[in-house]
Amino acid sequence: MKRHLKGIGVVMATMFLLCGAAWGASGQTTNNEWKGEQAKYVFMFIGDGMALQQVNAAEIYRGSGSVEGGNTTPSIKKLSFTQLPVQGMITTYSSNSFITDSAPAATSLASGYKTDNGVIGMDPGKTKKFTTIAQMARDKGQKVGILSSVSLNHATPASFYASVPSRNDYYGIALQMFDSNFDFFGGGGIHKAKGNKKEEPQPDAYEVASSKGYKIVRTREEILALKPDDGKIIAVNPVLDADSAMPYDIDRTDKELSLAEFTKKAIELLDNPKGFFMMVEGGKIDWACHANDAATAIQDTFAFADAVQEAVLFAEKHPNETLIVVVGDHETGGMSIGFAGTQYETFFNKIGFQKESYLAFDKRVADFRKNNAPDKASFDAFFPQITEVFGLTNLPADEAKTLEEKAKGGDKEAKKLLAMNLSELELQQLHDAFARSMKGEQERSKDEQTYLLYGGYEPLTVKTTHILNQKAGIGWTSYAHTGIPVPLFAMGVGAELFLGYYDNTDVAWKTMSISGVKN
Amino acid sequence: MKRHLKGIGVVMATMFLLCGAAWGASGQTTNNEWKGEQAKYVFMFIGDGMALQQVNAAEIYRGSGSVEGGNTTPSIKKLSFTQLPVQGMITTYSSNSFITDSAPAATSLASGYKTDNGVIGMDPGKTKKFTTIAQMARDKGQKVGILSSVSLNHATPASFYASVPSRNDYYGIALQMFDSNFDFFGGGGIHKAKGNKKEEPQPDAYEVASSKGYKIVRTREEILALKPDDGKIIAVNPVLDADSAMPYDIDRTDKELSLAEFTKKAIELLDNPKGFFMMVEGGKIDWACHANDAATAIQDTFAFADAVQEAVLFAEKHPNETLIVVVGDHETGGMSIGFAGTQYETFFNKIGFQKESYLAFDKRVADFRKNNAPDKASFDAFFPQITEVFGLTNLPADEAKTLEEKAKGGDKEAKKLLAMNLSELELQQLHDAFARSMKGEQERSKDEQTYLLYGGYEPLTVKTTHILNQKAGIGWTSYAHTGIPVPLFAMGVGAELFLGYYDNTDVAWKTMSISGVKN
Repeated sequence: MKRHLKGIGVVMATMFLLCGAAWGASGQTTNNEWKGEQAKYVFMFIGDGMALQQVNAAEIYRGSGSVEGGNTTPSIKKLSFTQLPVQGMITTYSSNSFITDSAPAATSLASGYKTDNGVIGMDPGKTKKFTTIAQMARDKGQKVGILSSVSLNHATPASFYASVPSRNDYYGIALQMFDSNFDFFGGGGIHKAKGNKKEEPQPDAYEVASSKGYKIVRTREEILALKPDDGKIIAVNPVLDADSAMPYDIDRTDKELSLAEFTKKAIELLDNPKGFFMMVEGGKIDWACHANDAATAIQDTFAFADAVQEAVLFAEKHPNETLIVVVGDHETGGMSIGFAGTQYETFFNKIGFQKESYLAFDKRVADFRKNNAPDKASFDAFFPQITEVFGLTNLPADEAKTLEEKAKGGDKEAKKLLAMNLSELELQQLHDAFARSMKGEQERSKDEQTYLLYGGYEPLTVKTTHILNQKAGIGWTSYAHTGIPVPLFAMGVGAELFLGYYDNTDVAWKTMSISGVKN
Repeated sequence: MKRHLKGIGVVMATMFLLCGAAWGASGQTTNNEWKGEQAKYVFMFIGDGMALQQVNAAEIYRGSGSVEGGNTTPSIKKLSFTQLPVQGMITTYSSNSFITDSAPAATSLASGYKTDNGVIGMDPGKTKKFTTIAQMARDKGQKVGILSSVSLNHATPASFYASVPSRNDYYGIALQMFDSNFDFFGGGGIHKAKGNKKEEPQPDAYEVASSKGYKIVRTREEILALKPDDGKIIAVNPVLDADSAMPYDIDRTDKELSLAEFTKKAIELLDNPKGFFMMVEGGKIDWACHANDAATAIQDTFAFADAVQEAVLFAEKHPNETLIVVVGDHETGGMSIGFAGTQYETFFNKIGFQKESYLAFDKRVADFRKNNAPDKASFDAFFPQITEVFGLTNLPADEAKTLEEKAKGGDKEAKKLLAMNLSELELQQLHDAFARSMKGEQERSKDEQTYLLYGGYEPLTVKTTHILNQKAGIGWTSYAHTGIPVPLFAMGVGAELFLGYYDNTDVAWKTMSISGVKN
């Protein structure tokens, strides 16, 4: 390393000796040993499904999303976490696939070991249990908080306290959660609280939690009123979706808490002289990207960034004792800032028209299906809801023609109106998707072509978000995850150890070393 | 910055004072001023169209591309430049679009200023000319080399010596090239050497170059025999394509030079006591990605990495005097390591079957079209060439069924044979594309749906690479560029200035500061 440096003396040389290896000099290796003093307060923020494209889409939307009619002066506005002083890149593959799922990804971040897709906190052979950084912090006498916008027994949060052969064993994970003795869980609820199978009901998980000494808090007022001496807490957002997750931030109502509010409260409850470890997951960036819904993913990325900002405020008060790591676990959707149809242009302002998540819109489609026989359901009768929620229009041909002429003459209002108008091809695609949605097919993904078109989602909804996203210049290649490396951002004690290009398992080792919890 | 650090003394504090701002502490700003001693030998390698996905695809292919039948033990093998000790991320947008083209992208890297898409070395108003780092190096008495695998008057190389309102003014760019007095140009040839328009022929550009004192060298033997005292050189690869570019590396023949060989020779010719500036472009990673052809893009990425390795070998001999910067200019194609049809799996070994670039295959399609009337051209008669070049098969239904049964029983050979067999949907898509290709339509991109399917490329070829790529788990969203930030890798004097997340214009300012050429 030193030989590549011009001699500006012992300071630079020492600098490289201190953190040189973290810069990846030897290619496949990285320095995971921190030799400085340790961080007492450690935050690990995980943006599920958040790679550079998700981050950049949010930055572009924030910087230029409100520009009407295009992007004549492109600018990005950085998010709270992209402004952190240290950046790194990490590979995300699991032990059996270049494309990881959230279980091995979070296991790597929590424990430092790779495992197979679907497995949580165990080796691929499913016999050896890993110890997580959160458990190490607890055993050292620190407080521990696990927060997520999805259910608290979902793969990512579970990877910090559970060891199970299958991420689908929600009930088993919940039981391990209550045995963790961690101080604070917050965000979503307990998924499958009555057991994994309806036909084999188990003791209500919330009651089991109570019996283990956890206080369950379920209203905004109660959660905000929590005090540090209230004991072990499970704080559940007052509104949950069918998967026991917090609703998408784009759909959030006043009676709920934001992820930032949960984070702020957790900091207040966990702050103590021995320090804490806190994991906060923005879990639904991933879900929105699975559904190829950029507007919803971007709003959840903002919610995640707001949560990080709470940690930054805390770190500013405890500058020599705090480490913040913000990292994606994998990319979802094969998102890109560029689509064949829009070529070299983007129109991010267009996704600003979207008022609800794809999931909220699904409900409109389901209601319409319920109220109309398949052969009587009229696309034209439903269409106003597409305009209401997504801003997409179907102008009469003569009106469109008049507007096109005005637009050619430079009429900005005409251009704006045309920008959201559907092409013949797009209308045909929506018609096809509507017909399929009205049939209410259950096994949508069985046939290859149908799966490629709709990915098992409500056909009309996914086709509508595809069209809106594509008009904005956003493309997608998958309804699953992809294998691209993801960015990491860090600040505080030991942050420079995170510079470079390394593996997701290294994130755990670095964090353990900096926090000094490893035995 | 300092306040986020645990006190390990004056060394760490000094370290942050030295390069802290380069770590992006203040968000939108980055430190572009180098205070150490200056780099005498400066390399800027530009991977055109090379973002993290292109880099990672090459790493995955190198690490696991030979694994037959899947990815049971995922591993990547890093490239020469991803092993460099410093990594950064840069935004790429131009002054009028989030999606830049290569002209403003290279202008930013060469001069430090943003301009509009299509413009080279001038402001968006097209009146003010920018000065490039290459010109500054020349004016300081250093030697200058400009190398590219595309034509030497293409947008990226041109941005280091020319100022023109339009990148399409190839002839005007060539004239500025000959007036640059740079010491070495190598790689592709002069595009449109007889003028921009056939109907208005101009003096042959190569003759103009000779009259300006350039020696034109066109054979492998002559180029490899060049000596430092041979004067100003334009070294043209013995084989050029229709765009005056070097052929794709996957199609390279023995009589040609690799980009690495050009780079090695340039280093030999330019090495002198006053130092040099050298720009080397891997220009056809971009072109292959425009055509959505991953195998060809990956091979050109390897060729680019080999060229970087020549600079690394030089740097190891001149450790305290050399800076190497390797950077993408933008992403192309919206490539992703993940496709809807393969969900959580990738099969990069499948693209190893491809033996030629899409461009070489285009010639086969054109020959077949020429020799067969559209209504007589038989898909079945052409199909063996698809198998020969891409390894894709169309097994008889009964044979496929037998193999499927064997595969279920664990027969590896059967699995391997089935892996490259086309599904009914894929076959139908190839049939449609073949019919369209046989019509030889010239204006393929006029109709929206046709453009989305084929992007103006030979329909049969692009559909075949799409299918092969998708079978491997690689998706594409565009035939143009996309707006995602790209990675940067650096080593040597001042390299740490490139840590962080900043703009492409900053790359020029940092490099100018480290090389000390700025007045």
